[in-house]
This record gives sequence, C-alpha cells and structure tokens, in this order.
Amino acid sequence: MQLYNFFNSSTSYRVRIALALKGLDYEHHGVNLRAGEQRSAEYRALNPAGSVPLLVEEDGTALGQSLAIIDYLDARHPEPRLIPEDALARARVLEIANLIACDIHPINNLRVLGYLQKVLGVTDEQKSAWYRHWVAEGLGAVEALLVRHGRGPYCFGETPTLADCCLVPQVANALRMGCELESYERVMSVYRHCQAQPAFQKAAPNNQPDYVA
Amino acid sequence: MQLYNFFNSSTSYRVRIALALKGLDYEHHGVNLRAGEQRSAEYRALNPAGSVPLLVEEDGTALGQSLAIIDYLDARHPEPRLIPEDALARARVLEIANLIACDIHPINNLRVLGYLQKVLGVTDEQKSAWYRHWVAEGLGAVEALLVRHGRGPYCFGETPTLADCCLVPQVANALRMGCELESYERVMSVYRHCQAQPAFQKAAPNNQPDYVA
Repeated sequence: MQLYNFFNSSTSYRVRIALALKGLDYEHHGVNLRAGEQRSAEYRALNPAGSVPLLVEEDGTALGQSLAIIDYLDARHPEPRLIPEDALARARVLEIANLIACDIHPINNLRVLGYLQKVLGVTDEQKSAWYRHWVAEGLGAVEALLVRHGRGPYCFGETPTLADCCLVPQVANALRMGCELESYERVMSVYRHCQAQPAFQKAAPNNQPDYVA
Repeated sequence: MQLYNFFNSSTSYRVRIALALKGLDYEHHGVNLRAGEQRSAEYRALNPAGSVPLLVEEDGTALGQSLAIIDYLDARHPEPRLIPEDALARARVLEIANLIACDIHPINNLRVLGYLQKVLGVTDEQKSAWYRHWVAEGLGAVEALLVRHGRGPYCFGETPTLADCCLVPQVANALRMGCELESYERVMSVYRHCQAQPAFQKAAPNNQPDYVA
C-alpha cells in the first residue's frame, strides 16, 4: 500500500494511527500542502478531490477521505478492529469521530485559515480567536459525550478505536495552536494515554519522513 | 423513535431521507436553529453537543451526528441497506458522504456563516463568495469522483445509498443559495433522479411540520 499524506495534516495522522495500530506497512508519499502540491495536475490525476490522505492499493485502487479509508482498512484487515461491530457501540465511536471530523477539523484546517487571511484579510488575532472558538465548541461537546458514554483509558474502553484515531490529531493540533485544554479532563486523559503507546508515537507528525520542524 | 431536527438543516435532511427510504416512522421534534433552541439548557441535557439531528430510541438512547445515526439505522433496520457490505463498495459510498459531510457542509453551515457576519463583520457579498468557493471546491471533487466511480441513476447504481442521502441536501442548499451547478452534470443528474422519488420528497424541508417559508 501507498499513503499520500502530509506530516502535519490531521486527517493523514488519523490514517497513520490506524495503519500503525493494525501493524500494516506502507510506502509514505509526502504531499506538501503548504507548497500546494495537492493542487498539482499530477496529484489531481491520482485524487481528483485534491486532498490528502489518499490510500493506493497494489492494484491501483485509490481511496480518499480519512474516515472512509479507516473503515476500508477495518474491513480488509480486521485485527484489531477500530470500529466495533455492535450497532450501538459503533454508533458511539462514529458519533465522536464525526463530531471531530465534521464539526471541528474542517473549519480550522489549513485551507480555511488561509482563506480567512488571504481573501478576507483577517488579523492573526482574529484567526486565532476563530480557531479557539471552534475548538472550544467542539471539544466541549466531545468531553461531555465521553463523560456520558466513555470508559477506560481510551475513548471507549481498553482498546483504541476510530474515535481515538480522530481525537489525538485534533488535540495535538489544538495544543500546537496554543489552546488551553486542561479543562477537558476526559479528553486530555485519553490523549495522554494514547500518546504513550508506540503505534500513536509512530504515526506522529515528527516521526514522518516529510517532517519539517 | 423520535428525531430532533430542523426542517432547513442539511444534516437533519440526510437522516430524514434515510428514515423515509427505510419506511421507518418517527416523532418529529422541531429544534429551531435560527432561534438558538439547540443551545437551550433543556436541549443540551438531551444532546450535550447542542446540535441536530438527534435520534432518540424508545429506551431513551440518544445519538447524534447524521452519519453515525444513518450507520446505526442501517445496522438496526438493514432493509434497504444504505451502506453496502462489500469493503470497496462501502468505501466509495463513504468517500462521497464524507467529502460532503466534512469538506463542504461544515464550512458553510448556519453557525459558521453567522460567525463570519456577526464576529468578523464580512459583507453579504463576501459571505456569498465564501459559500460559493467551498461549494465549487467540494462539488467539483464529488463530480470528478462520481464520473470516475459512479454509475446508474443514483450515485452508485440502481438503489440509493448514504452518498445520495448526503448529496441531495447539499445540492438543495447550494441551489437555495443561488449557486450555478449545471456544470456538475453527474451530480445534477443524481439530484434530479432522487428528487423524483417519494422518500426524498417526504424528507424535503418544505414537507416538515416545522417548515417556515
């Protein structure tokens, strides 16, 4: 397998965690989002959506969207399962994963922050306030749902799930942007537990071949 | 079942389509997003995320996030299936669904447009340009992927899937905002086919009890 991704992309990071948890080897292709490589004609031929991550199978099958990729990996390589089989258990995992993937990350990613600055001309302080606002709204909801439905060292029990694959990159991103997150006790407890695990460490931005400090 | 939702919310509309396709009855509870009812203490007690839609089962189990809800309905009421069982077929459906649910809708929804206007003070024209920009980026990607992988009158074949549940509300929203979409031929062909089906009509905003013209 090949993974087109960017060290600092949260959606790429989710898939790298899933691959590491499943012990799957892959070839890493760095796509530099800061340099706009995702918009090149060459990359668009591979992924018309012009986004990372993109998983490419041996037979050339190319698949985008991090949550779709992780679902696919779970079907093809079910050990360990990251999305439970029981209807309600999987719904709880998907609820947290989608809350992060739909309600927090897209509003705060590189292209949206870039539009705010380049097209709308917002100040650095306005951009930071925007970022913090959506993180507070979103992680507040994640915290409340985990307090209500979560248990164990991971989001949902003794083993990691898709929810953890989404939570860790989002928290790491928010910390890098200087957000104060200690009030989200359950979120931070899960984050710290995950960060101590080898698979999560292997997937971290600073351990990728395209990493730039 | 009870569904807390808002007639004009795209994410609510997705779930209403799924419920209609499966022929499931439910009690409709209108949550007026324009009046901020989703932020009330009463609603937060039910859904700490303060978002719609929210599905509540007979036993009180409450579940948020439209894609998690539809996955759950598919597990509990598998006829007709909206997310295929085959690994690659489901991946293609989830790729389109997530592209719409993560890369288009969240950036253009009511709360984000509200922040742009109320906090950042953008003009109506800047707000419209923002909306059109993300629709063009996103539907361009959906079109390219459907041309590459789609077939049949629906996104993927002769029967509707989660991808159609997401596509229809997004296109309807973009048309309401005055976007020019005819160049997305495959997207518009799927949209028109869906709009002619009774289940999609039943789920439409103007057929909801909380509809306001």
